[in-house]
Formats: sequence, C-alpha cells, structure tokens
Amino acid sequence: MRKAIATVSLSGTLIEKLEAIAAARFDGVEIFENDLLFHTGAARDVRRYASDLGLSIDLFQPFRDFEGVSDAQLRRNLDRAERKFDLMEELGAPLILVCSNVGTEVSDDDARMADQLHQLAERAARRGLKIGFEALSWGTRVRTYDRAFGIVERANHPHLGLILDSFHTLALPDDWSGIAGLPGQRVFFVQLADAPRLGMNALTLSRHFRCLPGQGDLDVPGFLRAVLASGYTGTISLEIFNDDMRAAPPRQTAADGHRSLLFLEERVRRGDEAAAQEAAAGARRPRRRVELFDPPLPPAIAGHRFLEVAVDERCEGALARLLTQLGFRRMGRHRTKEVTLYGQGEIRMVLNREPDSFASSYFLVHGPSVCAQALATDDALAALGRAESYGAARFGGRIGPDEHAFPSIRAPDGSLIILTDAQTGGDFESDFVLEAAAGAPAGHLTRIDHVAQALPEGQLDSWVLFYRSVLGLEPEDSMMLPDPYGLVRSKAVSNAERSLRLPLNISESRNTATARLVTSFAGAGVHHIALATDDIFAAAEALKAAGATLLPIPANYYDDVAARFGLDDAVVARMQSFGILYDRVGEGEFFHLYTTPFEERFYFELVQRRDGYDLYGAPNAPVRMAALAALRGPNLSQVLR
Amino acid sequence: MRKAIATVSLSGTLIEKLEAIAAARFDGVEIFENDLLFHTGAARDVRRYASDLGLSIDLFQPFRDFEGVSDAQLRRNLDRAERKFDLMEELGAPLILVCSNVGTEVSDDDARMADQLHQLAERAARRGLKIGFEALSWGTRVRTYDRAFGIVERANHPHLGLILDSFHTLALPDDWSGIAGLPGQRVFFVQLADAPRLGMNALTLSRHFRCLPGQGDLDVPGFLRAVLASGYTGTISLEIFNDDMRAAPPRQTAADGHRSLLFLEERVRRGDEAAAQEAAAGARRPRRRVELFDPPLPPAIAGHRFLEVAVDERCEGALARLLTQLGFRRMGRHRTKEVTLYGQGEIRMVLNREPDSFASSYFLVHGPSVCAQALATDDALAALGRAESYGAARFGGRIGPDEHAFPSIRAPDGSLIILTDAQTGGDFESDFVLEAAAGAPAGHLTRIDHVAQALPEGQLDSWVLFYRSVLGLEPEDSMMLPDPYGLVRSKAVSNAERSLRLPLNISESRNTATARLVTSFAGAGVHHIALATDDIFAAAEALKAAGATLLPIPANYYDDVAARFGLDDAVVARMQSFGILYDRVGEGEFFHLYTTPFEERFYFELVQRRDGYDLYGAPNAPVRMAALAALRGPNLSQVLR
Repeated sequence: MRKAIATVSLSGTLIEKLEAIAAARFDGVEIFENDLLFHTGAARDVRRYASDLGLSIDLFQPFRDFEGVSDAQLRRNLDRAERKFDLMEELGAPLILVCSNVGTEVSDDDARMADQLHQLAERAARRGLKIGFEALSWGTRVRTYDRAFGIVERANHPHLGLILDSFHTLALPDDWSGIAGLPGQRVFFVQLADAPRLGMNALTLSRHFRCLPGQGDLDVPGFLRAVLASGYTGTISLEIFNDDMRAAPPRQTAADGHRSLLFLEERVRRGDEAAAQEAAAGARRPRRRVELFDPPLPPAIAGHRFLEVAVDERCEGALARLLTQLGFRRMGRHRTKEVTLYGQGEIRMVLNREPDSFASSYFLVHGPSVCAQALATDDALAALGRAESYGAARFGGRIGPDEHAFPSIRAPDGSLIILTDAQTGGDFESDFVLEAAAGAPAGHLTRIDHVAQALPEGQLDSWVLFYRSVLGLEPEDSMMLPDPYGLVRSKAVSNAERSLRLPLNISESRNTATARLVTSFAGAGVHHIALATDDIFAAAEALKAAGATLLPIPANYYDDVAARFGLDDAVVARMQSFGILYDRVGEGEFFHLYTTPFEERFYFELVQRRDGYDLYGAPNAPVRMAALAALRGPNLSQVLR
Repeated sequence: MRKAIATVSLSGTLIEKLEAIAAARFDGVEIFENDLLFHTGAARDVRRYASDLGLSIDLFQPFRDFEGVSDAQLRRNLDRAERKFDLMEELGAPLILVCSNVGTEVSDDDARMADQLHQLAERAARRGLKIGFEALSWGTRVRTYDRAFGIVERANHPHLGLILDSFHTLALPDDWSGIAGLPGQRVFFVQLADAPRLGMNALTLSRHFRCLPGQGDLDVPGFLRAVLASGYTGTISLEIFNDDMRAAPPRQTAADGHRSLLFLEERVRRGDEAAAQEAAAGARRPRRRVELFDPPLPPAIAGHRFLEVAVDERCEGALARLLTQLGFRRMGRHRTKEVTLYGQGEIRMVLNREPDSFASSYFLVHGPSVCAQALATDDALAALGRAESYGAARFGGRIGPDEHAFPSIRAPDGSLIILTDAQTGGDFESDFVLEAAAGAPAGHLTRIDHVAQALPEGQLDSWVLFYRSVLGLEPEDSMMLPDPYGLVRSKAVSNAERSLRLPLNISESRNTATARLVTSFAGAGVHHIALATDDIFAAAEALKAAGATLLPIPANYYDDVAARFGLDDAVVARMQSFGILYDRVGEGEFFHLYTTPFEERFYFELVQRRDGYDLYGAPNAPVRMAALAALRGPNLSQVLR
C-alpha cells in the first residue's frame, strides 16, 4: 500500500522531517500546518523540495472548528478556508483534513453541518481541491466515524469525503463494525495510530501517548482489515502525537514508522491467512485490491547459540576467572583470532579481543560488554531476508579462510545479532582449536534463560517494534520496578516457546543502577545475563566454593518472604545463606541469585524455574536494585548537597 | 502540628531517607515496609538510628488485603499480621495502616469486615499496638472514608481507628462534608497528598502523580480544615508517590515536604481569618486545639528593583552594547566595586564583574547570566523573616563602607533574590557614582514585564512551592510548548497585581533550545528577560536603527496570523518588518519580539500589552523556538546519525 506520515509525528525542522521521511522510503507526507508556519521559506519551495526527494504531499492539516456554526461565522470560516486553499495550491496538496468542531457553540443539526460542508466542498471544487471530514473523539457534536459519514453522505458532494483515524475510533468504546461496509471510494484518507491503555481520557492520551501501530494496545490490524474490506485502496498514513517522538531523532522515528506500517500489513495478511485456514475447505482469502507486504516468516528460534563479549587483555583474565567460578570450562581458542570459547551445558560464551575487529571497536566505546548475541534459528538466511526486508542493517565482518560466515544484523544500539542455524552455527565450534574431548562441558548451568538490556530513555517502543518485526518476538506485560533512586520501566520480548527472552529496561531517572550501567555503556547495553539451572542450591554452593562474590541480600527480605509465601524455615535459611530470592505465581516457583557486577558493566543471574513459572521475579527487582545501590555507597547527588 | 512523612515519598536508601527527613525538621516518620526489607540491618537498629536523629516512628505500612475474606484466609492473614507486629515492636511503631482490600474475592458484608478487624485489633491490643483502617479509592468494596468509618464503629475496639488520606477522599467525586463531624479521637492518623487533575483514573494518578500539598489541584486546605474541625490533634503526614520525587535528591524532597506542610497550615489559618472577617461582627474564629504555623504575611511586591548580571571583562562590553541598542543608558559606576549600572524607564540592570564576589563565583559556573533578581517589596525585613521561616537560606555578601545592606535569600538554584524596600532599595543608586543628571533615563522601554527561567527536569513543582510559600506568588495555568526537538512545560508564578511575573520552563527533552540554555547554565537559569513598552513599533524601529539583531520570524507566520485574527494588512506588514509576533485573547492584545541570544545564555523580549492581555503569547512560543533552533543550524543528533 502507499504509505505516508504526518510531519507532526517527527521532531526537527520541516526540512529535517522531509529528509527523514524520504530516507525511510515513505511515498507521501501530510503537512501539519504549524510546520509550514515555522518554516523559513515559501510553500512552493516546500513542494519542490518534497518532490525532489520523491515525496508527494498528500494532505494538508488540520482545518478546525468549521461546521455547525452560525451564518456569520460560516462566512469567516469560508474566508479562512480560501487562504488555506491558496497554501494548498502552492504546496500541491490535493486534500485538506477538516476535523470535527470542538468549539462551545456548535449546532447539533446534521443538516446544518452537511450544508456548510457542502459549501466548503463547492469552494474546494472550484480549485480542484478536496475536503476530508474526520470525527475527533472529543468533538463537541461529531465524535464517531459513522456520524461523520452520515453528514458526508447528506452533504453529497464529490469533493467531500470521509477521513478515518484508527485512534479516534479505537480509543472510544465505539462500535466500528460498520467500517467494512462503508463505500471505500467515499473514504478519502486513512490515518493510523496506536495507543497504550493508560486509564486516561482520549484527549490526554491522544496528545501525548499515541504510538506506532504495533507499539500499543489498540486493534489497529483489525481496523485496517475493516478499512480494506470497504474497498479502500488509498494511502495509509501515520499521525502520531507522542512526547518521546517529539524528542527522538527524526530519522529514527521515520524509519520506525515505515517499519510499523510494513509490520501492520504483514499482520493483516497473516490474519487473513489464518482466517482462511480456519474457514471450511473451499473458503477463500478475502480478495484484496491492494498488495500487502509479504516478508519471509519469522524464524523459529531455539535460543542463544552463543554470547560474544568484547574484552581487552586486562579484563579478559578477570572475566575468565568469573566464568570459571560459574562452572564454565575453557573449551578452546579460535584458529586465527584472539578469541576464546567458554562453555557449560548448552551455554557458549565467546571472549573476543581480536585487534581491529568489530569487538575491539565496540570495546573502545562500551568497555567490556556483550557486543553480539548469536541466535539459533531454523533458517539463518531466511531470517536475514526478513530482517533486511524490515530495514535492519546487515553487517559483514572479516571472515578468515574456512571460517563460518554468520549472517549478522545490527540491533538498534549498533551491537550485533548473529543469525545461526544448524548448517552454520551447529559446528561453529569448529572455528576453534578445542582443548578437551568432545561433548558439552558439565556444570550446574544448562542454558541462557534471558539477557537483560538497558536502553536509553524514550527508546523502549522503538526496540519492541524492532524485535517484533525483525525476529517475530512478542512483548510481555510492562512493569515498573522501583530502584532506590528512581523508577525503571521493564518490558520483555520473547518467543512463544520462551526459548528466547530479552527483558528491555528503561530508567526514568539518571541515578538508578540501570541508568548508571547505561551511562557507562555510552548508550544501551546488556546489563545482566541470566543462566538457567535445574538445582540452584547446588549451583550456589559450587559458586560459593569457587569464591565468587554474590550480591548480598538483607535479612529482612527473608522474614518477609517467609511470611508472604509460608515457606519452610529450613529452605528460607538455605536461601538466605546464598542470597537466593524467591517468587511464586500460582504453582510456578522461581529461585534466583545475582553475582556482583563485573567491571560495573554487567552481572550474572542464576535462575531456576519450577512448574511453569513464566516471569522474571519482578517483585524482587527492588531488592536487587537496592543491593546494587548499597554496593556503591551513598548516592552522589546526596553527597553533593 | 506534629509533622511526619512516609519513607516511600523519598528516593534513596532507608538511612539516607531518615537523615533527610530529620534534616528537614520533621517530627516523625512512616516506615514503608519495602524500605525495611531492602535495608541491610535489623529493625531495632532502624529504631535506634531514627531516635538518635530525633525522629519517632509513628506508623508502619501498608498491611494489605486483610478484611472481608474467608475464615481460612483470615487465619493466614492473622498469622501474617503477627509477623508484622513482631517487626513493629522492634521498630517501636505503635500503629499499622491496614488499607482496604483490593482482592477479587472480598465479601461485601460490613459485619464480616468489622468482625475480622475486631479480631485483628484484639491481637494488636495484646501487644499494645493499634490498627488504623484506611479506604483506598480503588478498594474492591471499601472506597470511601465514611464506609471505612462505619466498619470501624461497628467493630468497636479501642485499638482500632480510622486513617484519613486526602488523596483517596479528594480524588474521588466523594462527598466529604461528614469529615468535620467525625469524632476526632477515632481518627488515628491523617495522611496528606495533593494531585493535579490529569484526566486519568485514581490508581494511575495515585501511583505516579501525587504531589505535595500546594503543588496540585485538590482542596487539601479544606480537607485539613474539616479534619481539625473533627477535633483531631494528631500528626499530619505526607504520603507521596511521585515519579519525579523517586528520582529527586531525598533532602530536597524532605525540605519541600516540610515547607508544604507549613504552607498548608498557613493557608488553613488565613482561610479561618478570612472566614471570620466575612462573618457577622462578633463571630469568632474556630477554636483550634492545635497551633497552626503563623509566619509574617507575604510582602507586597511592586516589581523588579533591578536585575544583576554576572559578567567578565570580555563580555561586559558586548552586553553594554546590546543594552545601549535596547535604549539603556549607562548611569554610573559603583563607588567601590567593579559594578556598572544601566537604566531606562523604571528598569535597572547591574553588570557585576567584581573579583571574589558572589557574581564572580556565579560567572565561573554559569557564564554571563542573571545572578540576582532584586524585588521592590513593602517591607524587606518582614519578607526576609517570612522566607527564613519557610526554610529559605539567607545570604550575606560583603558590604562596603556606607553601602546598602540588602537582605538576600537563595533561590533553589543558588542564585539570589534580593529583597529591597523604600528604605533600602529606594536609593540603592546612591551606591553608584552617577554619571548624568538626576531622573530616569528615557527610552521606549518602561519596566520589566517578566523574567523567564529554565529549570532542570523534575524541578517545576519544587520551584512553584518555593515561590508560593516564600514570596506569596501564585501559579498560573500550565502550558505545553512544542519546540522542534521536544516539549517544554511552562508555568508562570505571579502576584495578583501582575507586577511580578516569573514564567518557569522545563524541557522534557535534552535537545530543545530551553534545555540547551539550561545545560550551558550548568543547572537552572534565566533564559529571557521581557521588557515592557507602550509602543512596540517605535521601540522596534529604534532597536533596528541601533543595529540590534532581532530574531527572524518566517513569512508564513504572518500569512497565518493575518488569516486567524483578521488583522489589517498594513499592520501585519509592519509587524513582519520587525519580526513582531501577535496574540489576542478577548479584547486583550499582545505584541512581542525577541533579540537573538546573548552568548547563548539569554535573550531579551520586548512586549506590549493592550487592553488587559494577561498571558505570555504561548501560541507564538513554537515560532520563537523554531527560530532559535534555526539559528543553530541542523540539530546535532540529526547530523550524528
């Protein structure tokens, strides 16, 4: 489908916005009037600039408080419209968005509104322009698409049509089952936005918290499916008012926006396919008059194949010691590079200090940190194809003779996601000179349970969209975790099998442990690696015996956990002796413990899930955060006052 | 009244919190259970530590989901309570807060709830402890104070009483007229919190946006007045859940909290006095059994007496040139210091480059910037007394022989507020060797209209409380101003006569012009100074003739302003030739223009108000911000991608 975006959705000057929109491969743009007012240059120059970038100007917006007014006001409104028509001619914008009147003195008479819109359409027609009428969900009289459509039908003018907006329809408890039955040619334009359900009124939600389709809780795919069923074949356009996006780089927002529309199309297509499969044999997919995006299916992901940590000579030894304490065994050394492999159970950790490599560049900026996550997929090349079709950047590293070439893409922070499969990754260890006999090194740890990443503020929605579209992961519920020095918002993305879990964390303050790790990382980064065990007590015992430093947990925590869950005293005593935390949901139990941070960069977690526990121990996050804060002594901002 | 605060209201570790609370001169503290759980140390050590700091532990909280449960669950709940009673004994906390059950299976039978609370109170009584029952506004069954009170009365146990919370009562559309009629001795504790009206549900509002009394929109003074009318003589305690405060330094939050309670008491007292005056002669003030805070009245403020700008030799000349272009005349030089006086109309600007002075220290950190605002009050010493009674820090600078000693206090960012009156400030110019004949220098500018300050993120509420309590200013409506690179939240404080107007601005992004000025200022600071004129066209003409650089405004703005307001073409053309912006509200008109920033620190605005215009031209703020952004060329974050 043709894709557009409203300039109000992006930060920056009008020129910056147009460049970002064109770079993200949109077809067209809605010009938000204020962007033009604040632009130093004539409207016709904007038209030329957009055209040179390959962008059409599809819509000019908004024109407010037009219909349902007194005759005297109507004359003034028509005069005002003529001035805007002048601008539209200069811009080459064929359509103007008239949103329903939010004034205090608005007639409730549909005939009056229809008559006035007819007059406006007549004026527009003389110039070859068109009017699109849209119901704002907080309009004084007209709040729903069906009332707006009734008025448009009553006005009965070929230059007047309906504009649909998913936000206004889905944010109301409105019955929108009629959309599929609309005559599609009477729908002049379709705007799309998603939104979280935050328990606030539609106006506040709309002005500050709209988000891209796929980032919120509204059924935007269902909405688009209904729109397509009406026979609409026009443009789909993003109109997002969002405080984070107002501050984000416009190129990121535009790239995310284009990705969100592709992903929306894919979801509509897959939904159709699923519906067709469910229907009786012989049922056919709905016939579309438009092509929907059709990328390769998301890969099946069995989990992490390995994690790669960028190190230098100095810290490699310390990390190797910590891995050994954790029960890892040094498995071998790379045949041609300064790269070492450690293993335990199914877990593989690669320590990379090869000069002039990606890892060494990463190390310079981020210090010792996870620079690549390798995933075990069923088809790495198909996964790469999907990622690239969603605009992910492919990465090509140096390949030595006879070495494995892993398809790789860049995560939004520039770190790597390496795509392996049985063919490439199954024997990636053959790139190494293995030191011991064949077979996986034994220990108490079995696999990578989850890898938690800290993101810069305002970036959560962008990352969630990346993982959903590129890897087919789905977001879990959002959590607010209280650090002693501020809140941390957390949302995990994972696959249905839960073989890949990636909690994403955003600190809402600059003083939390999470924020400090991010700051050290010069951006985003992995702040902890959770490793699964089938016997956390044995693993903890071994860890302690090996001399590892565990994160100390206050005794008061154990009094409370005993009271809350009615745990056996002896079990609680054992937990306390190792600093093991506990959570329970239904029958599922969760035991976990933490090491202290390695070089203030990241730490390890050991987790044991029992009986289907499917979360991350969020109730214990404040304990962990307070313990991390205590490690660092008094807060700097406190000392400075 | 005795004052307390809940530990959950502050950031930091438990020890940091207690120290901050004691430093702010609170009498007591509510221990939030999580703060204890995450504390590395025994409860009895916390008791001793608080006691050494002079703090009593008044309350332990919360105990959740107790009442209205099955018999089996009741037994578990009572067991759980006994564990908490153990903790309370160690803490020396006499009272526990039981908040109404929010579970899914809760009986709606008041008798059952009363009976279960009676059993709990009986257990507490055995240990000499007390139970306070509080209605959460989102409780499953019990949501209002009067239902909670009915249950408490029915339970009829001397160790069970009611806890009132202003948030839960005022956030609901609840009739709270009955509070004054409650038997005060049955109210065991009173928690106070304010909140803005944000159009969201009570739970979301409560968890993230509660604020200190005087910072929100709830009638907390009315609530406290009703509480006092009941005969309650106990503690008033702050329980604030607020995302900004979770990240703010705990000492600031504690100091603000204490100030907010003092200010609340003053408002209740003044309200009583006003009511007494309004009542028929012979009516008496309500008799209080508690003493309410009684500071000196706020000063009457005629406006700014002068502004002091910290400069060095290098930039003094440039600023002097700019002032001369603006129509200022050099009036004289300080008798003993490297300080120069400029004047025009009633406006006085002092340029200070005296070595080893406050101004020179300020310059080192902030660069050329307003380091002091001198206010013309009716009684500077009374104003100082009030400020100090509200915990403002007094500042004493060096005074030369025969020089004026101005009482001064520190604003929250460390800059000075100098308090002058007819006695001290009337002839402050006599400290200067005046260069010209007596009389105010003539020019088109008459007085300081407003001084706009940028604040660091999360600090708006703190500053508003400072100005309300210390200077008696009142907040105007809050605005959201879109900069091309993010939103700026703006709220002015002013006096009733509007002779002092101080817009306060917070950038929600780090890339806005406002944020960049703040960053340059290493904190907060004045980013523009608005000077009033009675003839903006003459002033602009003179400014242009003098060679000043005015902020360029795009031509498109003038097309729109002409269409929106139906302005005369000739007037619009003149406005455009000077970059004059326009706003109108009712009959009131506002003309204003801006200079380009001086050393990237602050800029001047010229304003003309006509026919009672009472705002700041907020609809034009985006134009100004876009023009400021355009001055700086492309956005850095854009270039870096």
